[in-house]
Amino acid sequence: MTQRTLEQLETPALLLDPQRMDRNIARMRSHLDALGVSFRPHVKTNKSIDVTRRMLPPGGPITVSTLREADYFAGQGYRDILYAVCIAPNKLAHVADLQAKGVRLSLILDSIEAARLLAGEAKAQGGRFDLLIEIDSDGHRSGLRPDAPELLEIAQVLDGAGIAPKGVMTHAGASYECKSVDAIRAMAEQERASVVQAAARLRAAGLPCPVVSVGSTPTALFAQHLEGVTEVRVGVFVFQDLVMAGLGVCSVDDIAISVLGTVIGHRPDKGWTLIDAGWMAMSRDRGTAGQTVDQGYGLVCDLDGRPIDDLIVLGANQEHGIVGHRSGKAVNTPHLAVGNLVRVLPNHACSTAAQYDRYQVLGPEGRITATWPRFNGW
Amino acid sequence: MTQRTLEQLETPALLLDPQRMDRNIARMRSHLDALGVSFRPHVKTNKSIDVTRRMLPPGGPITVSTLREADYFAGQGYRDILYAVCIAPNKLAHVADLQAKGVRLSLILDSIEAARLLAGEAKAQGGRFDLLIEIDSDGHRSGLRPDAPELLEIAQVLDGAGIAPKGVMTHAGASYECKSVDAIRAMAEQERASVVQAAARLRAAGLPCPVVSVGSTPTALFAQHLEGVTEVRVGVFVFQDLVMAGLGVCSVDDIAISVLGTVIGHRPDKGWTLIDAGWMAMSRDRGTAGQTVDQGYGLVCDLDGRPIDDLIVLGANQEHGIVGHRSGKAVNTPHLAVGNLVRVLPNHACSTAAQYDRYQVLGPEGRITATWPRFNGW
Repeated sequence: MTQRTLEQLETPALLLDPQRMDRNIARMRSHLDALGVSFRPHVKTNKSIDVTRRMLPPGGPITVSTLREADYFAGQGYRDILYAVCIAPNKLAHVADLQAKGVRLSLILDSIEAARLLAGEAKAQGGRFDLLIEIDSDGHRSGLRPDAPELLEIAQVLDGAGIAPKGVMTHAGASYECKSVDAIRAMAEQERASVVQAAARLRAAGLPCPVVSVGSTPTALFAQHLEGVTEVRVGVFVFQDLVMAGLGVCSVDDIAISVLGTVIGHRPDKGWTLIDAGWMAMSRDRGTAGQTVDQGYGLVCDLDGRPIDDLIVLGANQEHGIVGHRSGKAVNTPHLAVGNLVRVLPNHACSTAAQYDRYQVLGPEGRITATWPRFNGW
Repeated sequence: MTQRTLEQLETPALLLDPQRMDRNIARMRSHLDALGVSFRPHVKTNKSIDVTRRMLPPGGPITVSTLREADYFAGQGYRDILYAVCIAPNKLAHVADLQAKGVRLSLILDSIEAARLLAGEAKAQGGRFDLLIEIDSDGHRSGLRPDAPELLEIAQVLDGAGIAPKGVMTHAGASYECKSVDAIRAMAEQERASVVQAAARLRAAGLPCPVVSVGSTPTALFAQHLEGVTEVRVGVFVFQDLVMAGLGVCSVDDIAISVLGTVIGHRPDKGWTLIDAGWMAMSRDRGTAGQTVDQGYGLVCDLDGRPIDDLIVLGANQEHGIVGHRSGKAVNTPHLAVGNLVRVLPNHACSTAAQYDRYQVLGPEGRITATWPRFNGW
C-alpha cells in the first residue's frame, strides 16, 4: 500500500513520532536500570499494543487504570498486571474472570472496609488475591499515611483471611505541581521514603512485603536513588507533553504526539487563525494553566514539529481551535492560508490521546508509515 | 434478558434518563413550533441513533460537527445534513463520497480563500455544493460580520462558479457566557438580527437566500421571536447540563445524563470521599468554573438523582474523583461507604458523553432497560 502523506489525512488526526517515543523509552529504561529497579509501565497513557510492545515484550509486568485495559493487554499476552485504582465490589466478578484466564492481577486498597470486603470474598469464594496497600506519599489523593495505625490493621485483616498483602505502592501525583527540578528531586525522595517506611512497619509486624512500588514520570526521572523500592510505574514519559516540558522533565522536542489540524479561516480583526482542532481534538485539559508558561489548549508547530512564532490554541470550541499569539496580542498569519496544516502539541498526553481511536505513525518526509489502533472507555 | 440494576453495572458508566430527555425534547420542539421555525437538531452532543430518533425521524434535517457523524447518520437514513464547521480541502473527497451516496450535505465557509477553492473544485470536478456563508453574530469564533464587504464578494465568487450560496448561518456561542436570562434574550435577538441582516444584503444584491439558520441552546429557548429565520440548530438541550442550569436555561432536575461512580475510599483527615469516576469519566470540562456556582468536575447525587449535601467532585485524576463539600470545608460522609454508588451530573453534556461508547438507559426502580451505543472521533 502506498504510504499516505500528511496532506492526505483527514483532520484532526493524532500523529505519533516513533523516534521521539523510542528516545523517551530508552531514557526511562536506562535511568531505572541504573537505579536497579524493575520497570512496570503504566499503559493508561497509550492504550495500544504497538506502543506497549516497544516498552517491554508481552509477559512483562504492566500497570493499568481500568479493567478494560487489563482485558485487552491480557489478550495480548501481558499476564502480570497491577490495577492501580482501589478495588470496588462491582468489579470483583470481572477480576475473577481475568484470574480464571490465568492473569496475575494485583489489586490495591487503602481501607479497613475494603479489606473486610476482600476477606469476606476470599472466604466465600475461596478466592486468592494479590493485594498491595496504597500509601499516601504527598497528600494529593488516596492512600494511607505511612505512619497510619490502619496500615497494620488492614494487613492483619487480610493476613487473617489468608490473603496477606504482597506489598505497598504509592503515586506522588503532587510532583505534577512542583515548581523546580529540585522540588521534583525532593518529591522523589519523599515518595520513596514514605513507601519504604510503610514496608518496614509491615515487616516489623512479621508480614513479608516483597513489593515496594512507586511511580510518576517526574519523580522516576529525577530520583537520585531508589533504595528499598522494587519497581517503578510510569506512563506519560512514553509520549511526554507540555505539562512535563513546563516542569523541566523533558524538552518540547521530546513530545512524541501531536494533533494535525487544518486552517479553516481567519479573523484578521482579532488576529485569530481558526483550525479544525478544537477541544474534542485536544481534550479539555488545561494542565499548563497553572504553570509559568500557559500553553492554552496547545502549542502550534509547523509540519516538522517546530513551534511557530509563539502561536498557541488560545481558545477552543468542540471542533474549532482559535489560534493566536501567546500574549493575546493580535497577530496576522497570512502564511497560514486556508487549507494549510499545523501540528499542535498537547498539554497532557493521556487526555489528548484518549480523544482518538488510532495513532498515525510518522515516518520520513511526512509519510504515514503505519496506523496503530488504541481504545478508550471501560 | 433480565434487566440489570445499577448495582450490577461496572463503574464508571454513563446513565441516561429517557423521561428527562423526552421532556427536554418536547420543550424545545414546542417552543420552536410556536416561533414557526424548522428544527435541525445538532447530533454532536448525542452521537446516537437512539437519541436522535427521539428528536426526529430518519430523513429529517440534522446538523453535524464531523464527517464521521455525517457517515453514521446518513447510514441511518438522515440524508439532509448540515456540516457546521468551515470546510477544509482535505475533506472534499469525503464530501464527494457522501454526495455520491445521495446525501444532501450542506457545507459552510467564511472566506474568499475557501470560496475560490470550492469554485475551483466545482469547475474541475463538475461538483455541486450546497453552501451557507457563516456569519459572526457575537465575536466569539468564526464567521463574517453581517456588514462585512467580503460577504458579497464571497457570494459573487460562488455565484460565478454556478454554486451560489443557499443562505447564511450563525451560532451565538457567546450565549454560554451570559450572566442572566435577560442577557440571553438580548443575545438571541442579536443572533437573529445579525443573520437576517446578512440575508437581506445577499437578497439586495440579487442572490436568493432561502436558508437563514441560527442556533445555540440558550438563545433558542429564550428567543422571543425569530422573524426572518428559517431553522434552528441545537444540540445540548437534549441532555442539558450544569452549565445550562447555571445559566438559568434549565433546572438541575432536567439534566438527563449522569455518571455512575462507586465509592472506593475516604480521607477523613481531609473530608474527602474517593470515587472511581475521575476526569476520564467526567471529561476535563470545567465549564462552571466561570459561573456564579462552580460545580467542580460535577454535582454529586444519590441514586434517584437528588444532590447530596452540596457535595461536588472537587478534583479529579484520570480514574479518581475527589468528592467533598462545595465550600472546600472538611465534611465526612460515612453514609457513603466503600462500595456505595453515586450519580454525578456533568458540567457539559457534549464533553462528558464523548468519554463513553454507550448510554445505560434508566428505567423504573434503578433498572437498566437498554444500552444505546454511541461513537466518537473522526
